[in-house]
Amino acid sequence: MIDLEQIHASIASTPSKIVLLVADGLGGLAHPDTRRSELETADIPNLDALARESACGLTTPVEIGVAPGSGPGHLALFGYDPLKYLIGRGALEALGIGVELLPGDVAARGNFCAVNDEGLLTDRRAGRIPTAQSAPLCERLDRIEIPGVQVDVFPVQDYRFVLRLRGEGLSDQVDETDPQREGMAPKIARALNPEAQRTAEIVQQFVSEAGHMLAEDQPANMVLLRGWAQLPNLPDFGAVYHLNPAAIAAYPMYRGLASVANMRIIPTGMSFGDEVQTLRANWNDHDFFFIHYKPADTAGEDGDFEGKVRRLEELDAHIPHIMNLKPDVLMVAGDHATPAIMASHSWHPVPFLLHSQLTLGEGVDGFSERDCAQGSLGRIPAQAIMLLALSHAGKLAKYGP
Amino acid sequence: MIDLEQIHASIASTPSKIVLLVADGLGGLAHPDTRRSELETADIPNLDALARESACGLTTPVEIGVAPGSGPGHLALFGYDPLKYLIGRGALEALGIGVELLPGDVAARGNFCAVNDEGLLTDRRAGRIPTAQSAPLCERLDRIEIPGVQVDVFPVQDYRFVLRLRGEGLSDQVDETDPQREGMAPKIARALNPEAQRTAEIVQQFVSEAGHMLAEDQPANMVLLRGWAQLPNLPDFGAVYHLNPAAIAAYPMYRGLASVANMRIIPTGMSFGDEVQTLRANWNDHDFFFIHYKPADTAGEDGDFEGKVRRLEELDAHIPHIMNLKPDVLMVAGDHATPAIMASHSWHPVPFLLHSQLTLGEGVDGFSERDCAQGSLGRIPAQAIMLLALSHAGKLAKYGP
Repeated sequence: MIDLEQIHASIASTPSKIVLLVADGLGGLAHPDTRRSELETADIPNLDALARESACGLTTPVEIGVAPGSGPGHLALFGYDPLKYLIGRGALEALGIGVELLPGDVAARGNFCAVNDEGLLTDRRAGRIPTAQSAPLCERLDRIEIPGVQVDVFPVQDYRFVLRLRGEGLSDQVDETDPQREGMAPKIARALNPEAQRTAEIVQQFVSEAGHMLAEDQPANMVLLRGWAQLPNLPDFGAVYHLNPAAIAAYPMYRGLASVANMRIIPTGMSFGDEVQTLRANWNDHDFFFIHYKPADTAGEDGDFEGKVRRLEELDAHIPHIMNLKPDVLMVAGDHATPAIMASHSWHPVPFLLHSQLTLGEGVDGFSERDCAQGSLGRIPAQAIMLLALSHAGKLAKYGP
Repeated sequence: MIDLEQIHASIASTPSKIVLLVADGLGGLAHPDTRRSELETADIPNLDALARESACGLTTPVEIGVAPGSGPGHLALFGYDPLKYLIGRGALEALGIGVELLPGDVAARGNFCAVNDEGLLTDRRAGRIPTAQSAPLCERLDRIEIPGVQVDVFPVQDYRFVLRLRGEGLSDQVDETDPQREGMAPKIARALNPEAQRTAEIVQQFVSEAGHMLAEDQPANMVLLRGWAQLPNLPDFGAVYHLNPAAIAAYPMYRGLASVANMRIIPTGMSFGDEVQTLRANWNDHDFFFIHYKPADTAGEDGDFEGKVRRLEELDAHIPHIMNLKPDVLMVAGDHATPAIMASHSWHPVPFLLHSQLTLGEGVDGFSERDCAQGSLGRIPAQAIMLLALSHAGKLAKYGP
């Protein structure tokens, strides 16, 4: 792939507008009874019509045969090499609950746990205490003060929380404190390289104070920390592509991923109708919009084939409203497949269409895994779609004389 | 991609013959009224029949979504990585008018321009003086002598010329002298790195002498220079592939590109019929022929859909004459698409066929963008076709024991 920096000089800012609609978990697999996938089962006349006059293909999110998480899935669609830029677990967890992460911040996933009088783990998940019980504990931990660093603790769900450290010279090269087995003591926070020594000391100080603070609590009287992560140093999306980009996403995780690329995050409501309304209201202010549709993935993850079919049909009903805005380029993409029969993300290639006046309009029958396999784009890395979008929008000059 | 040097040892010289027919700007897009592309509209029974018994696919010239210039488009078809070997603008301009470039030579694009008494630009193109007026000025500039370097000036068209410097230790890392705006003085030729210092001084000396020589002329009383370039250091095509290659091209640019790869350039007439006649006359002397067809691209660049259709039909009529020579491998490829509706090069994948006794003969309906998308080759980098050709011609041994 061309490096983002390499093409920077060939991109011009123009008034043309690009919409990237990410239908999360878009791709699927055939139902064992009908041998038809979710997209093939769904009644999606608008997407089918769009596919017929678009360039179609299948995107590979990360690498052939590799199922991606949401982070790499989206970074690839934004044009970043997902093998080069990885958003670590703690950072993704923070983004997922809408916690602001700035460059240099370090985030970790935290667990409340239970230890006995000798400090040995008796329950790594503290009886899976509910959020109502863990949230006040998070408030207490949030009051821990460590000189030279800002400490913030945010509840996630049940026994899980996020710890965010903000300050100068922090590092995410700290080992987890979770020994992964009960009957052992939580591990001392250990620096994985010399530069992380100070961060490891801060973490250990946090753990000690947390232990004191929670000593009288039952069953959550200690914490475990893992997945230390800082944001990768992503090139600025708008600067690289000469775009003025905006993100519209109901779920915090996807706003977070867009914010890592430094897109403007536009507040929006929870339904996709709200998102499309937000798109319309802000249409004149940006030349690139990332708009995210979550429900198909949720149904897929739940193993709910019929639910995913309905969620795709609901998405389809919104397509004319987006097309009415007359985007110069509309891409419908998925960050990965989430086949309902697997109830998980998968590695399968993901249907993709790009609509513009400059596509062949190859006349595939509809929008599905099998139809898109016949498209002129063939099977392409997800990372390639931004260059396609820029070219179809008239923003990318030719390479070489 | 396999590096050219890596496969060198696996290639054997054999009597089998390969023809690479490059139909410049081959690919297109659908006419808005008929929804059929130039290839789909054209009556091309010979190419259609050939496609039915060939391996077909779509080539990506440089990178998905990137429109290439003629340089990268051809280098890729010859098997060179177009992102690694770039022919700069001055060098391509020189090749385009048939100026010999040797390794080490530096070439620039020149403009005649007009400056006022204070030396400030009043017309960056000197009133677009016609070639008849600029050619004698080029002859005068050609007489400039600078110690240690050979200076040659060649007219291109209207106010444009090529400056070629030949000598030891020259560099193309010199900034342009064109300030890109009128009302400013031409810029001093500046070295972009210390190694280019002497070249920059030579350039500045040329500019000064040109200014003296042209002082009394109207309106062309000064020159601007840009696009400094040397030839990339390409591996020798014949040596790498164990081929004895020849190029047949009516237009100088394509002879120039072939000469950069060190193919033998066979003189030929201006029509494609002349080129095919040249092919026949030299059939026994080479085992690889690059033969270039220009007119389809020209019509595409002119936005002349019907013209491009006719040019493709004219090409089709010559196919039986090439097939009569019984090449072991005939490839019909494009360096890039030039859709008439865009009147420019584009990034779209380009129809490709490879005919040999060893292809599947997949029975696609014909030779077009949509048909080739269904071919067994799928979508491949243009850079890959030389390996396909060598294998189908029985020249490339298997990889590994």
